[in-house]
Amino acid sequence: MKLLRHGAPGAERPGLLHSDGTIRDLTGIVPDIAGAVLSDAGLSALRGIDVGSLPVVSADTRLGPCVAGTGKFICIGLNYADHAAESGMPVPPEPVIFMKATSAIVGPHDPIIIPRTSEKTDWEVELAVIIGTKAKHVSEADALNHVAGYAVTNDVSERAFQTERAGQWTKGKSCDNFGQLGPWLVTRDEVADPQNLSMWLTVNGQTVQDGSTKTMVYGVAHVVSYLSQFMTLHPGDVISTGTPPGVGMGQKPPRYLKAGDVVELGIEGLGQQRQDVIADA
Amino acid sequence: MKLLRHGAPGAERPGLLHSDGTIRDLTGIVPDIAGAVLSDAGLSALRGIDVGSLPVVSADTRLGPCVAGTGKFICIGLNYADHAAESGMPVPPEPVIFMKATSAIVGPHDPIIIPRTSEKTDWEVELAVIIGTKAKHVSEADALNHVAGYAVTNDVSERAFQTERAGQWTKGKSCDNFGQLGPWLVTRDEVADPQNLSMWLTVNGQTVQDGSTKTMVYGVAHVVSYLSQFMTLHPGDVISTGTPPGVGMGQKPPRYLKAGDVVELGIEGLGQQRQDVIADA
Repeated sequence: MKLLRHGAPGAERPGLLHSDGTIRDLTGIVPDIAGAVLSDAGLSALRGIDVGSLPVVSADTRLGPCVAGTGKFICIGLNYADHAAESGMPVPPEPVIFMKATSAIVGPHDPIIIPRTSEKTDWEVELAVIIGTKAKHVSEADALNHVAGYAVTNDVSERAFQTERAGQWTKGKSCDNFGQLGPWLVTRDEVADPQNLSMWLTVNGQTVQDGSTKTMVYGVAHVVSYLSQFMTLHPGDVISTGTPPGVGMGQKPPRYLKAGDVVELGIEGLGQQRQDVIADA
Repeated sequence: MKLLRHGAPGAERPGLLHSDGTIRDLTGIVPDIAGAVLSDAGLSALRGIDVGSLPVVSADTRLGPCVAGTGKFICIGLNYADHAAESGMPVPPEPVIFMKATSAIVGPHDPIIIPRTSEKTDWEVELAVIIGTKAKHVSEADALNHVAGYAVTNDVSERAFQTERAGQWTKGKSCDNFGQLGPWLVTRDEVADPQNLSMWLTVNGQTVQDGSTKTMVYGVAHVVSYLSQFMTLHPGDVISTGTPPGVGMGQKPPRYLKAGDVVELGIEGLGQQRQDVIADA
């Protein structure tokens, strides 16, 4: 299934993508794409529904982030060997983790807002993993059983805030509209191998990232298991698994986003996003 | 007012501390100590209530974290000059920020759980600031108007996870039960000067931290204004403002917590916490 949330920011309703390409409304069927709905039992109940009988949502309706109730937005840093190289950093001996503010999460086609004083706003296409059931001290073999599904995310990053403004990356990762998530959560049964998905990102139509989750250093199962040794993962938590080469910081010379740019990105089987880049009001 | 939440984990109800020392129940008066209840209008409405007529809650009821709906748990690192010195780090030229997982937040007297494989679990008494209304690009002069109130927090930290396990502090800051918060949220009208509060922490009755918010490098108003330049702060967000000297890592030789220890901590006017230290099950 491809689960989504549609409607105005903060007032999204649950929905899903029908096989005929229309968006159908799940209002009244589930409270939201969140919590227990993301468990195997919750997803199984949804699979029993006659989707064709659900109301059609207008195709021009805004999509929100594809999951609600996200308590943690955890990212894995330098998780593609080639990206580490372009960042001038070694591949870490174990996963590097950092947090983005959950308040940065927005819909897949919501604009990228360049923060005031920013000169280095950058893009990062990433595979997001959405937790379905509580996970603590889970083994790598069991880890994917705790995953509800996958989505595209843009881990938008301000490089000066991240690395030139006194310690820790959070500052450059947490600005408003720095985490487009969606268009939909693709349940894990529809993703045969999360380590074999092509992914891409364009700026004004020019391809800048063109990679595959194949070259991820620490794969999804390892990352979920690893994180669960440090903290309990809860339904709706989002793990963004790192970006392949081609970010703006790695261009020669570096290239950053400016108002008026258009960013498009996608991952095989997970849909695509389109963002206008705008200045902070 | 001293606002609190009482009851079993995950099923807490709103309440407050009456001037007679009893806990009174706010069930049915407000949905929770969260969201719009934290605004000036929400707090003002609560002040109009006849507290003496509210039901008394049994004194042995568990207290939960004093605020719900926390989207961000932001910490300021090395924000006391003497603590920076004991950590062997320079005072940063601007606030260092990092995130703790919101899933680490627990009640004030809930145990400190030593993570499996941990050998360096440490304590940090800190003044927590609880946001009352949305704050974006607020000035230092206006910043405190966006604060609902203050509370005690223990920013429990695993030093090896924090600094010896590949980049970024989040890993050592986000374990379950690493963020005791409360016993109550003291509204800002009752805190004449947040930069003049004594604070202390004992381990097994021995004083190890004995400081004051007077020696904070970046004060509350500055920190709220500063953070709001990077990301929008929302009601219920918690900012932990750093710890004075006396953490375990700074002892000679370093001293860390072990199962069976008892940690007590408090801040002038904000109440105190007591935690048993236990091993992860």
